Amino acid sequence: MNKTEPRTLAGIMELLPSEQILFNQIKQTIENTYQKFGFLPLDTPILELSEVLLAKAGGETEKQIYRFTKGETDLSLRFDLTVPLSKYVAKNYGNLSFPFRRYQIGKVYRGEKPQKGRYRELYQCDIDIIGDEELDIIHDAELPSIIETILKELGFEDFTICINNRKILNGLFENLGQKERAQDILRIIDKIEKIGKEAIQEELIKIGLPHEKIQKIIKFIEIEGDSDEKIQKLEILGIENEIYQKGVEELKQVVKNIRLFGVSENHFKVDLTIARGLDYYTGTVYETFLNDYRQIGSICSGGRYENLAQYYTDKKLPGVGISIGLTRLFYQLNQLNLIKAKQKAISQVLIIPMIENLEEPIKLATNLRKAGIKTEIYLSNKKVKAKFKYADKLKIPYVIVIGEDEINKKEVTIKNMETGEEKKVKIEVDEMIKEITRL
Amino acid sequence: MNKTEPRTLAGIMELLPSEQILFNQIKQTIENTYQKFGFLPLDTPILELSEVLLAKAGGETEKQIYRFTKGETDLSLRFDLTVPLSKYVAKNYGNLSFPFRRYQIGKVYRGEKPQKGRYRELYQCDIDIIGDEELDIIHDAELPSIIETILKELGFEDFTICINNRKILNGLFENLGQKERAQDILRIIDKIEKIGKEAIQEELIKIGLPHEKIQKIIKFIEIEGDSDEKIQKLEILGIENEIYQKGVEELKQVVKNIRLFGVSENHFKVDLTIARGLDYYTGTVYETFLNDYRQIGSICSGGRYENLAQYYTDKKLPGVGISIGLTRLFYQLNQLNLIKAKQKAISQVLIIPMIENLEEPIKLATNLRKAGIKTEIYLSNKKVKAKFKYADKLKIPYVIVIGEDEINKKEVTIKNMETGEEKKVKIEVDEMIKEITRL
Repeated sequence: MNKTEPRTLAGIMELLPSEQILFNQIKQTIENTYQKFGFLPLDTPILELSEVLLAKAGGETEKQIYRFTKGETDLSLRFDLTVPLSKYVAKNYGNLSFPFRRYQIGKVYRGEKPQKGRYRELYQCDIDIIGDEELDIIHDAELPSIIETILKELGFEDFTICINNRKILNGLFENLGQKERAQDILRIIDKIEKIGKEAIQEELIKIGLPHEKIQKIIKFIEIEGDSDEKIQKLEILGIENEIYQKGVEELKQVVKNIRLFGVSENHFKVDLTIARGLDYYTGTVYETFLNDYRQIGSICSGGRYENLAQYYTDKKLPGVGISIGLTRLFYQLNQLNLIKAKQKAISQVLIIPMIENLEEPIKLATNLRKAGIKTEIYLSNKKVKAKFKYADKLKIPYVIVIGEDEINKKEVTIKNMETGEEKKVKIEVDEMIKEITRL
Repeated sequence: MNKTEPRTLAGIMELLPSEQILFNQIKQTIENTYQKFGFLPLDTPILELSEVLLAKAGGETEKQIYRFTKGETDLSLRFDLTVPLSKYVAKNYGNLSFPFRRYQIGKVYRGEKPQKGRYRELYQCDIDIIGDEELDIIHDAELPSIIETILKELGFEDFTICINNRKILNGLFENLGQKERAQDILRIIDKIEKIGKEAIQEELIKIGLPHEKIQKIIKFIEIEGDSDEKIQKLEILGIENEIYQKGVEELKQVVKNIRLFGVSENHFKVDLTIARGLDYYTGTVYETFLNDYRQIGSICSGGRYENLAQYYTDKKLPGVGISIGLTRLFYQLNQLNLIKAKQKAISQVLIIPMIENLEEPIKLATNLRKAGIKTEIYLSNKKVKAKFKYADKLKIPYVIVIGEDEINKKEVTIKNMETGEEKKVKIEVDEMIKEITRL
């Protein structure tokens, strides 16, 4: 028979079991933390009606969308978790309690050109807090405390959550009479990290901005100091504009509240250059960087938006949210060897029976499982060496050998596969668990 | 602005948060059990190359597949988790340890006509054990013990795992000279539950089977008694056929081993009528029924197959597996009100601050979270009544009110939202946890 070459579409992450275990641990840490802060789970479909999913979209995004027809139905795969959330909240408005706190961890699809670190099928891990008509600004400070908790849980200490407020930038542009070109200017400013001050000045000249306005912008993005100093300088910059002043006031409040939420001073800072390219955000914006690996970009971003679901409902639904691009993050952490795994295997114990009658080995496995220990029995008829090799390859931390002798003496040998240490232990679940969880 | 009606594609399950919590609990129970038996996690893509995914498929399945092109690439959404597993094992053969035990819980896609209990996007929860060249029959008995564990964990007691062996049927048909028509006859026999003996006889006449052969088939499927009696009767039925005899021998061994795995006598039985329509299975087959709700069909099915990945590799990879169709199962259990939820909310505690300065309430929340309690603070500026209503609607079991007075006295009131009981407790994490986990 002709064989088809078993292969996976380029740009899709498909992991070996040992990597998958690591990936799932990170995913689980994120989910546990989201739950610990009281977010509700959602699981909206991957497949949506194009008319609904693309109610807003256009331009760049639309080209990347996996869109097709089945029968007469025009369908698309979701490209983020925000649009499905909008649809969901508009659809189920009457059945939700506000502020509506939801998390969703799921795959999204983008028909990108495959390249390193770019994926066509990727996990996003989102939380959002949606208000009905209004949402108190205190929520903008809760999210950084969640980011901090997750990153600490994942073993990171040296990271910075950068905070800014879009109103400051918008107000500044209005004040400069550049409201129409705000998007263009933002896009240029956003590149300061990558291309530096001079290149930005040049690009601003290219789009025809007068010299004195460019100087004002540069003066603005060059504001330095710690978070409090920056806010102070913003206050005395002399920008007479209502939106600008509201933005500075909000930023001041968010910083105050972030401290209230107990976020360490070294884990956040005001950064006036971050803008989050999108049109979407209207207040607080966040980006998060591993300080030693700024080149991998923001690993957790988001912000405040005025109105979640304007394409589906007249209800005003302001919100604030963050998203972690888990697939890309995992790829990068793995490349940099930065994943601190707690657990390398699923099974905690492999039982190796050395006897034909499996009654006792199975009974032992059942009792260990009942006590919460993940236990596997090696059931295939192989040589002992092969059985140990299996435990070794799967990095199962403990092996229990059980044969006639062991059953008669009611005592087994537990081997610690990492140290090679062996210990005789009575066949009693409590005794065995003590040994197995000793690590 | 014109609004798009926020709606979800027909035939897709999209749950409210309270239902999603229940759904996730069932999913988590299944996953925990799979892990407890030492299965490794996989997460293959939903999007695959059509050439690879459809290497085998044809007929009915192919019509249901979501297939489309993006650029010049012919893509399909997976319709089960077995074909992706075949691809995966063939592709990663050299990097896997055999027997390869994997679980996968994920969504699959079928372009069905939407109707009650039929879904276009549905979760499957699969485990398989794959051998390299061979796989000892003992594994066929491990799977029923996993099914039993899951169903008991989900709160079910009255269920039956039905066991049969395809070789018995295949051997019988060979013996009757009906090997060519085995599929047709199987399809008819498979309907015995639904249409009864007479209708089956008629259908067999319709396909032109001689009277005396029909009688032999009926005599066969009418074999009664407990599992041991059935096996005995099979042994003395006088079918002189090697495959038949091998099947009976295997069935006998599987039943013996199922007992070894400690499965209760009332949770399994030999059922000679189950065949699993598919061409795919070659030995043991399973179906599982809730005895009081047989009408919902098998809730967990599977079996033994000779060769997992013949379309991708020359390696012989026999295996045995089961699958739970979780989306459909959830729908049915929900309809029948059979879901026994342990937990109705995500948050265990809602903290309601009655004070402007949130320092103490936030500190309390942080400390509870650090102690593992899922804790939410109501941060929006609403009236107390609205805050309690929120806890009530979300079924959060405990509310802690904290104001000036409480902070001064270092004592808060914990309200049990189910009983209405209130208790004063010191602001000490240990004291509070004792109260919160008292339920």
